[in-house]
Amino acid sequence: MYKVFGMKVSGNCHKVKSILTLLDLPFEWIELDTRKGETKTEEFLKINPNGKIPVLQWNDEINIPESNAILYYLARDTKFFSQDLLEQTRILEWLFFEQYSHEPFVAVNRWLLKFTSGDVDPQQIKNNHTKGMKAFSVMEAHLKDKNFFVGNRLTIADLALYAYSHVAEDGGFSLEDFPSVSKWLHNVKSYPKMISIESEE
Amino acid sequence: MYKVFGMKVSGNCHKVKSILTLLDLPFEWIELDTRKGETKTEEFLKINPNGKIPVLQWNDEINIPESNAILYYLARDTKFFSQDLLEQTRILEWLFFEQYSHEPFVAVNRWLLKFTSGDVDPQQIKNNHTKGMKAFSVMEAHLKDKNFFVGNRLTIADLALYAYSHVAEDGGFSLEDFPSVSKWLHNVKSYPKMISIESEE
Repeated sequence: MYKVFGMKVSGNCHKVKSILTLLDLPFEWIELDTRKGETKTEEFLKINPNGKIPVLQWNDEINIPESNAILYYLARDTKFFSQDLLEQTRILEWLFFEQYSHEPFVAVNRWLLKFTSGDVDPQQIKNNHTKGMKAFSVMEAHLKDKNFFVGNRLTIADLALYAYSHVAEDGGFSLEDFPSVSKWLHNVKSYPKMISIESEE
Repeated sequence: MYKVFGMKVSGNCHKVKSILTLLDLPFEWIELDTRKGETKTEEFLKINPNGKIPVLQWNDEINIPESNAILYYLARDTKFFSQDLLEQTRILEWLFFEQYSHEPFVAVNRWLLKFTSGDVDPQQIKNNHTKGMKAFSVMEAHLKDKNFFVGNRLTIADLALYAYSHVAEDGGFSLEDFPSVSKWLHNVKSYPKMISIESEE
């Protein structure tokens, strides 16, 4: 059985929970809190020297970090990936877009505004907001007349981008000017067995 | 024949040139200068709505952005990728590490210090330096007793990480405390047909 080291309010960790749930794969969840330094302990750094979650583990010895690599590992031979080289590449293209042009702004503002208690730099929030809105505008243009990102069906590209997009309001992002993104969010949300991110108690 | 929209001093573009060269694939290079806004023109935004290079194009209609997705596309069925699921995942793991934990700091400080003429925020340089050095320490730990990142042979994981690592000094990163990284850089550099990044005239 898989173990997942994760944090339930993290979108990157939600990706892993989503694909495991969609594939009916049983897993054990080990909850860590990054705010308490639980991903920087000597013990955890043996699991992921980069000190980040999620990590997918099995046999107590194989550890896979990087949420989007985990999505690939679990989905490669399923309907949530593709067997066609160009479609595979398109899926990966959106996974890299998510990590470089979306997550550092959309996820980070949510984190700063909702989950941290210290002072927040307003200029950083503003810069991230501009870049996050740009990411949504790129998604909007792509999703026009499409139900999903690649191949007109749910793939791990959708799961990766859904993770922080469906809670973007937590970070101050309004999606009302992005009707195609909103419609796509609904398509993913209503997919059988799809789950939403958990809130803090 | 492939066309590559790129900028010769960019590490992300160097990745594409490297794999095309290693695979003996002919290509036409279209040089763009991001500093002159050449990736934000109406014409280029039709090629990549995200306004970034590199883009791999063929038949004047298929456009693939995201350097690491391009590496996958060109290498999937070659010796520079793998046919084994776990090795494939390890390669992707390092590609995502590169885009999230390495490039935004190592590449950005090089860009700010070497290729921009405006004011540079010293605090940003310092923060990026700390995070870039952390990326090199993660690489150092992994590369101990290894010649390459995955499977003891050159893969696209090495090409992705080599791009900005072999010119990290341009961004003020000294690698003298990272002997395994330095040895790995030598291994990649001396690989048959491997190329270094070009300088500005």
